[in-house]
Amino acid sequence: MTGALPITCLDDLRRRVRQLAAADTAAAEAARARQSQLTKPRGSLGRLEDLAVWLAAWQGRHPPRLERVLALVFAGNHGVAARGVSAYPAEVTAQMVGNFRAGGAAINQLCRLAQAELAVIDLDLDRPTRDFSAAPAMSETECVDALDRGIAAVHAGFDLLALGEMGIANTTSAAVICAALFGGPAIGWAGPGSGLDGEGVARKAEVIEAALLCHRDALGDPLEVLRRLGGREIAAMAGAILAARERRVPLLLDGFVAGAAAAILHALEGSALDHVQAAHLSAEPGHRRLLEQLGMRPLLQLDMRLGEASGAALAILLCRAALACHRGMATFAEAGVSDRG
Amino acid sequence: MTGALPITCLDDLRRRVRQLAAADTAAAEAARARQSQLTKPRGSLGRLEDLAVWLAAWQGRHPPRLERVLALVFAGNHGVAARGVSAYPAEVTAQMVGNFRAGGAAINQLCRLAQAELAVIDLDLDRPTRDFSAAPAMSETECVDALDRGIAAVHAGFDLLALGEMGIANTTSAAVICAALFGGPAIGWAGPGSGLDGEGVARKAEVIEAALLCHRDALGDPLEVLRRLGGREIAAMAGAILAARERRVPLLLDGFVAGAAAAILHALEGSALDHVQAAHLSAEPGHRRLLEQLGMRPLLQLDMRLGEASGAALAILLCRAALACHRGMATFAEAGVSDRG
Repeated sequence: MTGALPITCLDDLRRRVRQLAAADTAAAEAARARQSQLTKPRGSLGRLEDLAVWLAAWQGRHPPRLERVLALVFAGNHGVAARGVSAYPAEVTAQMVGNFRAGGAAINQLCRLAQAELAVIDLDLDRPTRDFSAAPAMSETECVDALDRGIAAVHAGFDLLALGEMGIANTTSAAVICAALFGGPAIGWAGPGSGLDGEGVARKAEVIEAALLCHRDALGDPLEVLRRLGGREIAAMAGAILAARERRVPLLLDGFVAGAAAAILHALEGSALDHVQAAHLSAEPGHRRLLEQLGMRPLLQLDMRLGEASGAALAILLCRAALACHRGMATFAEAGVSDRG
Repeated sequence: MTGALPITCLDDLRRRVRQLAAADTAAAEAARARQSQLTKPRGSLGRLEDLAVWLAAWQGRHPPRLERVLALVFAGNHGVAARGVSAYPAEVTAQMVGNFRAGGAAINQLCRLAQAELAVIDLDLDRPTRDFSAAPAMSETECVDALDRGIAAVHAGFDLLALGEMGIANTTSAAVICAALFGGPAIGWAGPGSGLDGEGVARKAEVIEAALLCHRDALGDPLEVLRRLGGREIAAMAGAILAARERRVPLLLDGFVAGAAAAILHALEGSALDHVQAAHLSAEPGHRRLLEQLGMRPLLQLDMRLGEASGAALAILLCRAALACHRGMATFAEAGVSDRG
C-alpha cells in the first residue's frame, strides 16, 4: 500500500492531493446489492445504509470491516492564545494531553465504548506557533513537519479513522482559515469556542480581521493559508486526511477545527474529501457554514463543542451499527419474508 | 415498586395518567453538579450531558446506570391493510416477528451492539383489528387487553426502555390518530410508510378522511381515538409508556407510530411524556409535525423509517456514551487541569 511517504515541501503535498484514487465502485455496488436484499423496506435504514456503502467504497472491500478503528487526536499550542481569544489559559492544552494519557477525558470513555484505539500526538507544545495576527504562524519547515506527523500517524491496516484535536485558541485559527478560504466578515466565523462571552467573541473577531489584513497578499494559496494562519495540529490533521485517502481508510471528521484542516485540502482539490464523513455538527456557529461550503451533511447534531474527536468517536458507533445491520441481517429469501410485489 | 397493576377499563387509565410522579430533582441536581466538575468546558458535551441528567432524574438515582436495557417491540395486524394502504402484504407482520425471533432483523443486530435485551410481543396477529375507516378498530375490552399487555411488559429493574413496533398498515393508523388529535388535512399526515408511491399515498389519505368522517362525533376523547383508530401494538405502546413512568424507567421512543401512541397519553395529560426522549426523526413526513406537537426534539436524524425500535436502539448507544462520560471522566481537580477563572 503506497502513501506512507512523508512530504518534503508544500509543493509535494500539492502534487499528491491531485493524484488521489477514487472510490472502489465494485465494492460499493456489492454493498448496495446486499442492502437491497435485507429484510427491510429499501432505503429504510437511511444513512446507516449509506455508511455501509461508504465503508465498502473507501476500504475497497465488500463486506467492509471494523476490526481496527483509530481515534487520532493532535494537540498544538497557538501564539495567538496570548491575545485573549480563549476562555481557558494556554497551559490547558498540555494538561488535557496528560488527561488523555491518564484516561480521564471524554474521548477516553467514548473510545472504550466504541472499541476504538486512541492515539494522542502532541506537537511541540512548548513551542507555540507565532501569533498569526502579526506574523506567519509557521515556517514552511514547521508546517511540513506537522503535516508529516499527520501522514505518519495513519498506519496501514486501520479500517476507520476518527480525527480530532486539542489546542487552546485553535477555534480562532479555524475561523481565520475559513474566512481566508470562503470570505465573509470575521464575526461570521468567530464563535464562543470553549466559552467566550460576547465581548470575548468581538475581541476574537478583531484578531481575525487583523490576521486577514496582515496576510492579505498571500491568501490565494490554500497552503499559505495553512502555514500562515494554521497551527501544528491543524496541519497534522490535513496530513492525516491525505494519508487516510492514500491508505484506503475512511475517515470521520470531528468538529470545526478538524473541518478547517479538511477545508485546506478541499480548496486544493475538490475531490480530496470524498472519503470523509462529517461526524457531527458542532455548536460552534461557524461549523454549519463550513460544512455547507464543503457540501457535507453531518451525521449527528448533539450541540457538542468539545473537540478532542469526541463527535467523531460517537459516529464510530453509527458506523458499527451500519456494519452490524449490513453483515448480520437476514435477506428476504433467508428469512422467508415476502418482499413487495 | 408500584405500577404493575393492569387497568380494568379505559377510565382506569385516565385516572392513572393524571397521578404520575415527577422527576427526582435531587438526583438530577447531583448529576448536574458532577457535570460541572468534569474536564470539559461547561455544556460542551451538549445533549450527552442532558441525557445523563435525564437518566438520573427519571431513574431516581445518581449516578444513573444502564445495566439492564430493554428494547420492546409490539406487533399487531390492522384490518385497514385490506384497503391497500401499505406497500407490503399483511402477512409480513407475522413473517417479521419470525425474523425477530430468529435474530435476522435490524433490531436484533442493533440490540446486540447496544447490549440491550429484546422482547418481541405479538398481539393476536391472526385477529386483525377492524377496518377503522368503517368501524371502531377495537372494542373497549380489546383495547384494554392490549394496553395491559404493554403495561405488563415493563418489568421493574430495567434501567432504560427502547420502544417500537411492527405492523403492516400501522402508519395509516398513526396518521389518522395524529389527524384526530392535532387536526389538519389527512394528506399532511399520510406518508409513504414502507414505500407507497404517490398514488398510494393519495389512497391512504382518502382512507384517513373516511375514518375521520366515520368517527367524527367521538374524537374529542383521546382514548376513543385510540380505541377507534388505533391498533393493538399502538395501545400496548401507550400502556408501556405509562408503566415505564410508574416504574421509573426512562424511555426512548422510536418513530412515527410509537409517537402516535405517546400522543394519546400526551393528549390526556401534558406531563405524561416527561420521562420520554424522542430517539430519532423518521423520514416519514408526519413525524416532524408530530414531534413539534409533542414539544420533542429528536436525538438522531438519519433518514430512517423502519420502525421495530431501530431508531430507539441507536439512541441507547447515545445514552451509553452519555453515561460513560458522566461516570468515567476525571474532574478538573482529579486531573490537575485548570478550570476557567
